Amino acid sequence: MATIKDVAKLAGVSTATVSRVINNTTYVEPVTQERVQKAMKELNYHRDARAAALASRSNNTLGLLTGNLADPFFALIAKSVEEVARSQSCQLVVVSGGHNAQREKEGLDFLISQGCEAMVVHSKMLDDATLLRYSAQLPAMVLINRTIPQLAHRAVWVDNRAGAAKSVDHLIASGHRKIACVTSDLPIEDRTERLEGYRQAMACANLTIQPNWVINQPFSEEGGEAAGKLLIKQCPEVTAVVTFNDVMAAGLMASLYEQGYKIPNDYSIIGFDDVLLARYLYPRLSTMHNPIDLMSTHAAKLALQLREQSNILPSTNLFDANLVCRQSVSIPRQA
Amino acid sequence: MATIKDVAKLAGVSTATVSRVINNTTYVEPVTQERVQKAMKELNYHRDARAAALASRSNNTLGLLTGNLADPFFALIAKSVEEVARSQSCQLVVVSGGHNAQREKEGLDFLISQGCEAMVVHSKMLDDATLLRYSAQLPAMVLINRTIPQLAHRAVWVDNRAGAAKSVDHLIASGHRKIACVTSDLPIEDRTERLEGYRQAMACANLTIQPNWVINQPFSEEGGEAAGKLLIKQCPEVTAVVTFNDVMAAGLMASLYEQGYKIPNDYSIIGFDDVLLARYLYPRLSTMHNPIDLMSTHAAKLALQLREQSNILPSTNLFDANLVCRQSVSIPRQA
Repeated sequence: MATIKDVAKLAGVSTATVSRVINNTTYVEPVTQERVQKAMKELNYHRDARAAALASRSNNTLGLLTGNLADPFFALIAKSVEEVARSQSCQLVVVSGGHNAQREKEGLDFLISQGCEAMVVHSKMLDDATLLRYSAQLPAMVLINRTIPQLAHRAVWVDNRAGAAKSVDHLIASGHRKIACVTSDLPIEDRTERLEGYRQAMACANLTIQPNWVINQPFSEEGGEAAGKLLIKQCPEVTAVVTFNDVMAAGLMASLYEQGYKIPNDYSIIGFDDVLLARYLYPRLSTMHNPIDLMSTHAAKLALQLREQSNILPSTNLFDANLVCRQSVSIPRQA
Repeated sequence: MATIKDVAKLAGVSTATVSRVINNTTYVEPVTQERVQKAMKELNYHRDARAAALASRSNNTLGLLTGNLADPFFALIAKSVEEVARSQSCQLVVVSGGHNAQREKEGLDFLISQGCEAMVVHSKMLDDATLLRYSAQLPAMVLINRTIPQLAHRAVWVDNRAGAAKSVDHLIASGHRKIACVTSDLPIEDRTERLEGYRQAMACANLTIQPNWVINQPFSEEGGEAAGKLLIKQCPEVTAVVTFNDVMAAGLMASLYEQGYKIPNDYSIIGFDDVLLARYLYPRLSTMHNPIDLMSTHAAKLALQLREQSNILPSTNLFDANLVCRQSVSIPRQA
């Protein structure tokens, strides 16, 4: 690639003059300016933004630690953060943690080694103490989809408990009493909070949860399929299910169909997240809309603001999940 | 963040000594070495990889220009490229082109300004001449999902024609004669090639395509839904459909259900891509498996190889799409 020296040589000026033209720091004769610009164009010269950033001691990078880029939920996070980075002419550096504490740590260390100051971090496997240590070193690190009390001013999260409770309330209002919860088998906070929401809503309605109604599986389509087999085997009395997320609901529905059941006639199902997939399942999935796109945009903007100034007025970082009624819920089947 | 000066001060040595310890260039007394390492740890000092890269004139960045991070097909590309970047300790810089020529160009310019040399480029909207200009400047740029004759040695693409023809052959073998093609309304190569494959396979079987059997819509779920309405309205005689991709198939299926039709009893459908979604549609979608994960891994490795050495032995960069039979194809309905 062409360097500033090549440009200077072709234009017949000093590198200092080229630099003056590029940075617009002092007056340069219009004729000279034109000559330099022509040489830059001819050589297809691009200023190295890294060098400029290092020279000015600024850093124009936005880091993103995500879970798994191929999962539709994380794809939405990446897309929203990328849009903020683009609109603010930032370099987006992406690493994924793969739902593994060691990889999450390596990802964070990698972002730091690349000079990232502003970053949006989706970490589910690192403990609070570790994240607090990182946050002390990184004043422009923002957590997404998680909060730690000491970091609430730079964490953006969804009210999982209230969201899950709303989904159960909707099933109860539709006449269901025997409601299962198909959830994740990883000890992540989302799971704990959504499970608590389920338990609270059932308790409020004086409904007793049988221990085998809570089914723990990996939070993937495959996990949802496995849960479908367990559901039929271990709790045939159940008439409705809330799932940890939409991809588990997709697997659950496929499994129920293959076992000869119909949705919503035999089983009512509500998902969580409202990824695009939810609209195209058959029947279209009723689910809790998780405003992860808005949350990610908010988190990315907050990280960039924090990089510029540390005293940001506290904003509302807690978002609500809202019920989207489609076609996967009906009244309970007759016993 | 701590600098090399802070480390030197705490350890009571010169910055040159700290540098020697970090880069392991000359002998340093073990006692001194230990003192420096202790100071680095205490201050949580991380070497700025950008500065090191600039100093050594190397660049450890892998650029990715993608279409839309939130689309499952592009999510697979991002995931595979990210894995290669991680395994080779590269910084992954991601920009998206949004299926828009201007944004694709801005994305490429942005990657260049960030000092990216190795890059995987998914461009559908820039013309061949523009891409050839960029490629002349960027010897380690690799095209994915597209080829240009002059760049075949650094392009990785799928045989769209043969893939689409195979899907049509499968429908013909199942007894279908009146087969529609739901395709993209963008003038991208994938569309042209897959449409040609459809036409070729129909011609080989002496089947005449009626003009209204080719339905052009945006290649999204919404486009598939719109195509479903047009299909019923303008060609009720059709018994089977090949779609441009799986997300269009998802929308088409949802639309057909809502109009009271059953799949595969009333309409047989084959998609293209085999994104995860395909397995969880109802019925599970038969589709052409597009090995985009293998292709993306290959492209990322090729880009990194080209950065190191320009004379790479030509490899097989053309991949085949293979039929995955699931449940969305049966014999034609009776007239």
